[in-house]
Amino acid sequence: MKKSADLLTGITTTGTPHLGNYVGAIRPAIDASKEANKTSYYFLADYHAIIKCQDPERIRRSVVEVAATWLAMGLDTDRSIFYRQTDIPEIPELSWILSCMTSKGLMNRAHAYKASVADNEARGKKDLDKDITMGLFSYPVLMAADILMFNARKVPVGSDQIQHLEMARDIAGRFNNTYGTLFEFPEAVVDEKTAVLAGLDGRKMSKSYNNTIPLFEPEKRLRKLIMKIKTNSLEPEEPKDPATCTLFAIYKAFATPEEVQQLETRYLNGIAWGTVKQELFEYLNELLREPRKIYNELVESPGDMDAILKKGALRAREYATPFLEKIRSAIGIQRL
Amino acid sequence: MKKSADLLTGITTTGTPHLGNYVGAIRPAIDASKEANKTSYYFLADYHAIIKCQDPERIRRSVVEVAATWLAMGLDTDRSIFYRQTDIPEIPELSWILSCMTSKGLMNRAHAYKASVADNEARGKKDLDKDITMGLFSYPVLMAADILMFNARKVPVGSDQIQHLEMARDIAGRFNNTYGTLFEFPEAVVDEKTAVLAGLDGRKMSKSYNNTIPLFEPEKRLRKLIMKIKTNSLEPEEPKDPATCTLFAIYKAFATPEEVQQLETRYLNGIAWGTVKQELFEYLNELLREPRKIYNELVESPGDMDAILKKGALRAREYATPFLEKIRSAIGIQRL
Repeated sequence: MKKSADLLTGITTTGTPHLGNYVGAIRPAIDASKEANKTSYYFLADYHAIIKCQDPERIRRSVVEVAATWLAMGLDTDRSIFYRQTDIPEIPELSWILSCMTSKGLMNRAHAYKASVADNEARGKKDLDKDITMGLFSYPVLMAADILMFNARKVPVGSDQIQHLEMARDIAGRFNNTYGTLFEFPEAVVDEKTAVLAGLDGRKMSKSYNNTIPLFEPEKRLRKLIMKIKTNSLEPEEPKDPATCTLFAIYKAFATPEEVQQLETRYLNGIAWGTVKQELFEYLNELLREPRKIYNELVESPGDMDAILKKGALRAREYATPFLEKIRSAIGIQRL
Repeated sequence: MKKSADLLTGITTTGTPHLGNYVGAIRPAIDASKEANKTSYYFLADYHAIIKCQDPERIRRSVVEVAATWLAMGLDTDRSIFYRQTDIPEIPELSWILSCMTSKGLMNRAHAYKASVADNEARGKKDLDKDITMGLFSYPVLMAADILMFNARKVPVGSDQIQHLEMARDIAGRFNNTYGTLFEFPEAVVDEKTAVLAGLDGRKMSKSYNNTIPLFEPEKRLRKLIMKIKTNSLEPEEPKDPATCTLFAIYKAFATPEEVQQLETRYLNGIAWGTVKQELFEYLNELLREPRKIYNELVESPGDMDAILKKGALRAREYATPFLEKIRSAIGIQRL
């Protein structure tokens, strides 16, 4: 039996990864994937993606783009286990088992569901469950299955996901009490230090604000986007404040401390916005040149990624298959 | 690809099959299993069983008893497809996909859920969802998956299950509208002619009334149970009414029309209760002698049934595996 997950990260496959995703989630995960003596599981959460997206081509394309991004950025797929959720049939099966150990009241209190209800209320809908599917309602159960399937110990999440981890612990506890202890209690890891990157308009870079810089735009387009980043009207020669500047923040998220300090000095000495933008473009372009090449190759012939993900799924199932067998046996589903 | 299901029947695996189960559900299904030019699917619904039963040994034992009953009573496993639900991983996977096509409002209106809520209300519980699990709440989705996985056309059900068939049709329709037509609309078949057998106390024979005659009791015990069946205080020689007599009804459910008519005449001529009971015992005992022997052998070495059920699962998956592949592809889960 493979080792359980010291660390487990799910990546939702909707949309195209951008600089903010990279700095906030992808880079720390990739760094962790290289740590020795640690078994890290990374998966493309395509069964979560279908909750909100009913466009098959967008689902397919996003899986390609997300997988290519992680690989191009250097995920160590020998040391870590990288797979698609939908390649692990044990997960939906466990999800059903866990649903019998999940009180409905727990789901009634889930943030995402409550937000949808509040939205219906605000719109004056008579049916507060209008347009809410069972997929949305029961998704914390699937997430618990994602985690408990590999007895994951630590799960890095944004603060909006802490509740789901508590739910996974609750479900695991009820199972353990009912059938005997099989599940470890997963722990949410919220990294306060993780940078939140600002986008083109200065707000948090996010798909929903439409202010993102996708990671692997062609050179010209990357330059164009950086030139569009909002600054203020200070003239060249005038001293500028690095602390409130989006350009500086992006640079800081990538450069070494020495490089950051040098740019800081030049801000105080009155660097021109055009110069900062050009230099930031060159810096990022240099950094992304090689990964972009790999990314484009992977996206053009995604069959190679298929093989990598299938291999990852096989490795994940080395843990999941015998573990599910144990779980089934505990609840009475066993050979006759 | 195997043929889809012309007929599909799920058998819940809680409890020990009794005469009432046999007459109401098992016998008609077994008769249907022998029809040529018809593909019938029969499955042990052990993933439904865990919703209400958290006793692993009872789950295991019930699967053994139910499977042994169907086989002993002559289910044609060459012509029909006989399997355990938990041997088909495609079913919980489809269940998740369908949950994203199921409005939560639909589940809010399910009878079983509403009955539990009403029960909490009657008990004065503040939390109307008290003790209700997500398994109970979302079980119509799993049932839809059971049916749609094999594109079943006709599903024989009791009248309490008609609503679930409507839900399966609703879910299938939404999927077809969203992703293109893949599912047939299943149809509930409620056989009005199917006999409802009375139990020891004259009420409907049912586990919940504790008035059942299990099919395969040892001879002595079977006799004892039949002797316990409630009659009235009419003396021997007094004419008796067959229409209101439990003994007569049970006999009628098994005997030929000629035999029934003969007994009817003897009722009118004033047969003694003791004679009817003894003859009913002898009749049933003769009928059950051979199946009982087979049943006991199967229960004693259930490994043989394991092989039969595994073979059935393989045949069911000849349909389910490629069909799920098509469904996955339609929603965007496909090779990259």
